[in-house]
Amino acid sequence: MPARLQAIYLVRCDARSIEERARAIAVEQSVEMPVSAITDEFVRSEIVGRVETIAEKENNAFEVRISLAAETVGRDPGQFLNMLFGNTSLHEDVVLADVTVPKELIEAFGGPRHGLDALRRRVGAPARALTASPLKPQGLPAARLAQVAQAFARAGIDYIKDDHGLADQSYSPFAARVEAVAGALRSLEQAGGRGARYVPSLSGDLDTMRAQIGMARSAGIDTVMVAPMIAGLSNFHRLVRENPTIAFFAHPTMAGAARIAPPLLIGKLFRMLGADAVIFPNYGGRFGYSPDTCDALARAALDHREGLRPAVPVPAGGMTTARVGELLDFYGADVMLLIGGALLEAREHLREATAAFVAEVHRYDYGYAHGQPR
Amino acid sequence: MPARLQAIYLVRCDARSIEERARAIAVEQSVEMPVSAITDEFVRSEIVGRVETIAEKENNAFEVRISLAAETVGRDPGQFLNMLFGNTSLHEDVVLADVTVPKELIEAFGGPRHGLDALRRRVGAPARALTASPLKPQGLPAARLAQVAQAFARAGIDYIKDDHGLADQSYSPFAARVEAVAGALRSLEQAGGRGARYVPSLSGDLDTMRAQIGMARSAGIDTVMVAPMIAGLSNFHRLVRENPTIAFFAHPTMAGAARIAPPLLIGKLFRMLGADAVIFPNYGGRFGYSPDTCDALARAALDHREGLRPAVPVPAGGMTTARVGELLDFYGADVMLLIGGALLEAREHLREATAAFVAEVHRYDYGYAHGQPR
Repeated sequence: MPARLQAIYLVRCDARSIEERARAIAVEQSVEMPVSAITDEFVRSEIVGRVETIAEKENNAFEVRISLAAETVGRDPGQFLNMLFGNTSLHEDVVLADVTVPKELIEAFGGPRHGLDALRRRVGAPARALTASPLKPQGLPAARLAQVAQAFARAGIDYIKDDHGLADQSYSPFAARVEAVAGALRSLEQAGGRGARYVPSLSGDLDTMRAQIGMARSAGIDTVMVAPMIAGLSNFHRLVRENPTIAFFAHPTMAGAARIAPPLLIGKLFRMLGADAVIFPNYGGRFGYSPDTCDALARAALDHREGLRPAVPVPAGGMTTARVGELLDFYGADVMLLIGGALLEAREHLREATAAFVAEVHRYDYGYAHGQPR
Repeated sequence: MPARLQAIYLVRCDARSIEERARAIAVEQSVEMPVSAITDEFVRSEIVGRVETIAEKENNAFEVRISLAAETVGRDPGQFLNMLFGNTSLHEDVVLADVTVPKELIEAFGGPRHGLDALRRRVGAPARALTASPLKPQGLPAARLAQVAQAFARAGIDYIKDDHGLADQSYSPFAARVEAVAGALRSLEQAGGRGARYVPSLSGDLDTMRAQIGMARSAGIDTVMVAPMIAGLSNFHRLVRENPTIAFFAHPTMAGAARIAPPLLIGKLFRMLGADAVIFPNYGGRFGYSPDTCDALARAALDHREGLRPAVPVPAGGMTTARVGELLDFYGADVMLLIGGALLEAREHLREATAAFVAEVHRYDYGYAHGQPR
C-alpha cells in the first residue's frame, strides 16, 4: 500500500460543521477541486486526502487527522509544507498540530548530520549542558562585534552566534564580520585560551548563502545559522545536504507561533530537514510559549524515534543567569542555554557576567538533573 | 538623513501596556537587546527602532508605527521580511499591517518586469478582464492534464496555470508535464486555434526552480508560477531578476492569512519583488477574506504609486461563472478571473462550461464597470 502522511489539524468550529470542514481540508490539501468531478480511479482512491478521525478536544475545537498520499510530496521539503498546510494556512481557525511521516521520507530528508553529540564533542563538553551567546547589537562594525566575541570566549562560552538580525549590512558585511570574529577567536586560542565556536548567520538567496558558507569555511568555521522559514525549507535542506561537515543552527524567525504548532515546526520538521540545533523562544521570557510547548518542542528535537540524530534544543529570548538552575531542572543536560541581552547589560563587566553564566551551567549537578526522560 | 522603513503593526493589548509593547517591538525588530546596554551612539540613534506613533483603533487594539533603519535590510528581500516581522511573528497578538518603503529600496527590488499591460498584450486582450483556469487534479498523468489544458484553450481561456499542488511528482513529473501541455497547446495553435498561455508551477530549491524555468523556456513558455512564501522571498526575487523575459504569477500558499495583512504581503510585497500577477482567495469563496481585504489587495497590486508596473490581481478559490458579473462590477476590468473546480464539475462538458465563463467575461460591458478607481 503506498505510503501516506498523517497530518493532524486543530480546527475551531461548531460541532455541526466539523465533518464538512474536515472533508474540505482533506480536499484542499490534496486535489483542491470537487471530488465529485474526479473520474480517475487512482486519483479518487489514492490522491484525495482522507479524513481518518475527528475527535472533540474542547468546546468547538476538534482534532482532525487526515492522511495524504506521500507521492504528492515527492521528496521536496517545500512541497512537503505546501501539501501539509499551504492553502489551509489561509484559514485562521486551523492549526497544523502534528504530522507522522513515512520512514522513506524521513530517510530521504535525513535529519541532522551532527546533532547533540557532535556539538558537545566539538567543544569538549561530553555531558553537561552547552552555553551560547549572541553577537549584538547590529549596527556595530565587525571589529567591535569581534571584541564582544572575545569577551564571550574568554568567559568560556561554547557557541557564539550572530544575532539573527546580522546579515550582510554595510556597517558589518558578512565577509568582514566572519574574518574579524574568526580571527579574534583564533588569536585567543593561539594564545592558549579556550576556543569558542562562532556561528555566523546566513542570509539571502541560495547562492548567496552558499557563498557565505564558503567564506565561513575558509575562516575555519564549521557551524552556521539559517532561518529556514525565510530561506525556504528546500534551500535550507539543500545547504545541509551539500555541506556534510558543517553543523546548522535553525533560527525561528518568521516561524509564526500561531498556526503551526512550534513543537512540530521547530522541533520536528527543522530537525528532520537537518538542523543540528533548534533555537526557540523559552517560556517566561519575551515570548508567549508555555512550559508545555517548550517541553514538547525539546522532546521533538531530542527523541530517539525514527533513526534521526537528536538536535539540540536551544531555549532563548530574555533568559538570565538567575534562571540557569531552573532551566536545567526543566530541560535536563541535553540543552544549550542561550543568554544575550542579560549579559550585555553588564556592559564593561560583560566578561564577568558571562563567566558567571558559564559557571552556573558548569557547576550544576547533572546527576540530579531530572529534566524529562526523552 | 538615512532612509527609514515605516512599519505599521496592529497590537492587541490593554491600554496600560501598549507603550511598553510598542517599544518592545521596536527593539525586537532592530537591535534585540536592552537599549540601556547599547553604548554606541550610531546604534542608539539610527539602528534602534523608533516608535513614531501609537493610535487606538478600537477597544484594546492599537496601530503602532515604528520606523526602522533601511540599512538593517540592505537590499535582500528575506532580510527585509526578517527585519519587518521576523521575531515579532512569534507574538500571536501582533499583525504586520503595512509598511512604507524608501524609494531606493523599491527601485532596488524593481517590481514587475511585465505586469498588467504585458499580460494583456500577450493574449491579445487590451482592455477586458483576463481569464484563467487551473490544471487539476494532481495525480493525473501529464497526458491527461494536457487534455484538460486543450479543453480550456479551445474554450478561449487566456492563462492556464498548474494547480499549486502540482510539483515534480512521479505521476506527472515537471518535465513531462511541461512538454505534454506545451505541446498540446502548440498543436492547437498550429491547427489555427487560439493559443493560451501555460503557466507551470515551480517547486524545490533555487537551482531546481532555475532548471524548471530552463525546461519551460525550451518548450516556448514565457510565464511561470512561484509560491514566494515557500520558495523564500530572496529566491523568488532572484528568479525574477535572472529571467527578464519570463512573467511570474505569485501563489499565496503558506502566506498565512492571520499575521501579515494580505493586501500588504500579497498585493504590495509580492508585487514589489516582481510578481506580474498575484493570486489570492476571493471573498465569498472557500476562504475567509472580506470584500474590503480583497479590494485593498487589488488596489495594492494595481496602484500607480512608486513607479512600479501594476501587477494583475487574480481572485480565486471557489469562484463560479454565475459570479462573473458581480466580480467585474467589484474589481473592474483590471483583473484576471480564475475559475477551476466549478468548470471541472462539468466533466465531459468542460469545454462548454469554460466557454460560458469566457463568454461572460468577454460580453461584460466594461464601459460601465465601476470597479474602484485605483
